[in-house]
Parts: sequence; C-alpha cells; structure tokens
Amino acid sequence: MYDRLQSHIARLADLTDEEFAFLKTLFIPKKLRRKHDLLQEGDVCKYIAFVDKGLLRTYTVDSKGTEHIIQFALEGWWTSDLYSYLTSEPSGYTIEALEDSELLLLELKNMERMVEVVPKMERYLRILLQNNYIATHRRIVLSLSQSAEEKYTEFLQRYPEIVQRVPQHMIASYLGITPAFLSRIRARKHTTD
Amino acid sequence: MYDRLQSHIARLADLTDEEFAFLKTLFIPKKLRRKHDLLQEGDVCKYIAFVDKGLLRTYTVDSKGTEHIIQFALEGWWTSDLYSYLTSEPSGYTIEALEDSELLLLELKNMERMVEVVPKMERYLRILLQNNYIATHRRIVLSLSQSAEEKYTEFLQRYPEIVQRVPQHMIASYLGITPAFLSRIRARKHTTD
Repeated sequence: MYDRLQSHIARLADLTDEEFAFLKTLFIPKKLRRKHDLLQEGDVCKYIAFVDKGLLRTYTVDSKGTEHIIQFALEGWWTSDLYSYLTSEPSGYTIEALEDSELLLLELKNMERMVEVVPKMERYLRILLQNNYIATHRRIVLSLSQSAEEKYTEFLQRYPEIVQRVPQHMIASYLGITPAFLSRIRARKHTTD
Repeated sequence: MYDRLQSHIARLADLTDEEFAFLKTLFIPKKLRRKHDLLQEGDVCKYIAFVDKGLLRTYTVDSKGTEHIIQFALEGWWTSDLYSYLTSEPSGYTIEALEDSELLLLELKNMERMVEVVPKMERYLRILLQNNYIATHRRIVLSLSQSAEEKYTEFLQRYPEIVQRVPQHMIASYLGITPAFLSRIRARKHTTD
C-alpha cells in the first residue's frame, strides 16, 4: 500500500530504495471505515495522513449547528489540520471518512525524524507546504469573489471525481451555498451545456 | 548588510562560509525610502524581501476606499505577497515602507537556484513556510474570536516595537477596529495598568 506514496514522493525527491524503505517504517497504516473520524474537534491533530484509498472530508460546525466543509481529500492527497499538528493546540475541525479509506499516518516526531535521516525530504515538504499555501489562498479569494455558479463550474472542472463520489449537499456545503440553490444551478447547466 | 540575514539562516541551517558567500550573490540589495512601495496592487510580486533595516506594511484597499493592513514587517522579518510570488498572478496588495528601509530581495528563479546549489536551504524555507502558516492561521482565528481589547493587549505584548514605531491609526487598521475605539482602549489601559 506504499506504491502511491512512493510515486507521489518521487515527483519531488529522488530517493534510493533504502531511503524509501526507511521512510515506510515511520508511517502507521490505518484503515478507517466510512463515517468514522480521523480527528475530532477539540482534540490535537496528531497526524498528517496520506490517502492511499478512499475519500475524507474536513468540516467545522458553527454556533447554529451548521456544518461547513473546509476540504475534501482523495487518493494521493494529504489531509490534516496542519495548524493543530504543528502547534499541538486543539483542533477546531473534524476529519471524517466519507468512504472506507486506507491511510498512512505520520506523527510530527516521525516527520522530524524523516528529514533528519533523509534530508532530501525537506524539498518534498517545502513544496507540499507551498502548494497548500497556494490552494488555501485561492480558496479564500475565490469564495469571496466568485458567484455561486462560477464556484460550482470551477469545482466541477477541477474535481470531477469528487462531484461523482460525494452527495450534492456536501458539495453545496463546501461551496458555501444552499443545496436548493445548487440544484437550480445544476438544472440550468444541464439545459445549457 | 548581510549579517542579520546570515544569523537568521544560521538558526535553521548550518552553512559554510563558501555557501553563504554564494547565497549573497543571489540577493539584490535595495534601499527603499519612507512612503515608497516595494509592490503595488495589480503587479506581480517578483521578490521575497528580507528586512535588514526599517519597517514596512502590507495593505489592501476595499471597494469603499478603506485601507486594511494585513501585515507589518520589521528588521529580521521576511515580507512578500507569497501567493503572487509563487503563482505569478497579480497581487491584491501594496507593500510600502513606513520608515527608510534596507532590503535584500530574492527573485523566484534565485530561490530555486539557492536550493539547487545549497540543498540545506530547503530546511530553512520549509520552516519559514510552516511559521508563516501558523502565524496566518492564528491571525485569522484571533481576529474572529477576540474582542478589540484582547486584540490590542495581545498585539502590545507580542510586538511592542511596532506599537512604538507605527502611528496609532495603522495599529487600528491592522486590528480591524476604529482609531477612536483604539484610543478609548488605550485610555482605559493607562488607568488600570
């Protein structure tokens, strides 16, 4: 179950087989059944998780009890509450499996050990952080500047697989629009596409 | 003028004198007079800037013409619009010197060259990005959860030097409160401290 992780790393860092063999010893493989949580709000996020199989969502619940989805994570993505992970402060998020999932978990002390023993992994982590920064920033700017219809169109183009695998009301929650409004947008698109 | 940068890097990466001598060739020294801009809204941010001397602010202007200060940067800090720098998209921010400043500028292609020639710098960049992530996240959460008075008290404790060197109305803009309200908070604190 390390093949996907190995090719993900290979795009950014040129490891020997020995180095990757060592890396494997740092990860905890974890099967997470659908509807079960990797992280619960109020707990410290102890892991960054590489998704080998499955699909997860990160969400928060506001004071009115409404869920807001912050992020989805598919095969080949990393997911975590990075802030809680890096600072050991309690998380404001819950991370839940939407499908039966298989994860590779990396604790902070093992991330530190990883770059200590295999300094080439600094580059991998640096570029992951950069990409995370870009994606987070883009998500904030677009959520402020785009219309609901533009948001949905872009989401559909960028993440067609998530649209296939996730219930519509969760897409609406991620985009910050009501499910009814999303249905109307979808109906309009089917007529005009 | 590279001493401050050298000791900043030395905290995270153990460079030889030759390596640091090479690094110096990648930076562009720049003097920026007070009230002059390092970056203007609408332009692509071409540099990350290490502040050797002086003080800068990053701000944006809303549709009503009101300025919002996103960040200050003092001696020993890095400043940039990292999103624009990494993506080459136009920036929504202006970065302006509030005092006569001396900067060391690093273009993206030179940042790439830096880690190519001195891979140890990957660690430095990775940890800078992590700290930036933590600071940004903390700023967002605190701006949503703290009262105006708590915000000011924390700012005062964390950045006493900025409070000394920056006009009050800019501190108010950074904290998202009106200058009049900040004056009242300050008056109260002087009475009770």
